[in-house]
Amino acid sequence: MKIKSKVWLEKNGKLIFGSGKSLILKAILETGSINKAAKRMNMSYRHAWGYVVSAEKRIEKPLLIKIKGGKNGGGAILTDYAKDLLRKYEKLEQKVNAYTDKWYKNIFLA
Amino acid sequence: MKIKSKVWLEKNGKLIFGSGKSLILKAILETGSINKAAKRMNMSYRHAWGYVVSAEKRIEKPLLIKIKGGKNGGGAILTDYAKDLLRKYEKLEQKVNAYTDKWYKNIFLA
Repeated sequence: MKIKSKVWLEKNGKLIFGSGKSLILKAILETGSINKAAKRMNMSYRHAWGYVVSAEKRIEKPLLIKIKGGKNGGGAILTDYAKDLLRKYEKLEQKVNAYTDKWYKNIFLA
Repeated sequence: MKIKSKVWLEKNGKLIFGSGKSLILKAILETGSINKAAKRMNMSYRHAWGYVVSAEKRIEKPLLIKIKGGKNGGGAILTDYAKDLLRKYEKLEQKVNAYTDKWYKNIFLA
């Protein structure tokens, strides 16, 4: 048996940003490409792009800048807002996971 | 925008116990009846009972004792194991929720 936890941002009862979207943004940040990010996440380009568009609509901020052409056939970079959101979300998520494990041990296994 | 969090117990990647099941056990504990608990949760008796049976199977422990007959037409009480599980789960859940809110404020709104 182990404990699991999850955190997400909501607005008017609707999911705004959570672990799925953070993983896609992170993969785009690291690969510089929606296509490569989608492959890494085992999903279609369309699906990955859909996630980003849905996140942008809900957050009401641009998260990605698509770069056309160039010798690598274009790519995508995160806006400063997206980088900041991702960094903050990951920080919170890691903190919640770490403390949940710790408290689980204290409460359930002590 | 607000932060939400969730904790649950897993075994071999399968949900064992989480907020849904804890709410049903709590309602049975407080009402002494699966029927009354189901009504309070706005679900059918069948559905509530199904939740309990599924939790018992996954935890591999009895959670409820059904009491037949009597002037109140029977009822249900939680086993000591179930009471203990519920108490521990609620304690952990409350702690995680409270700290998630606090850290969200520190990380996102500071």
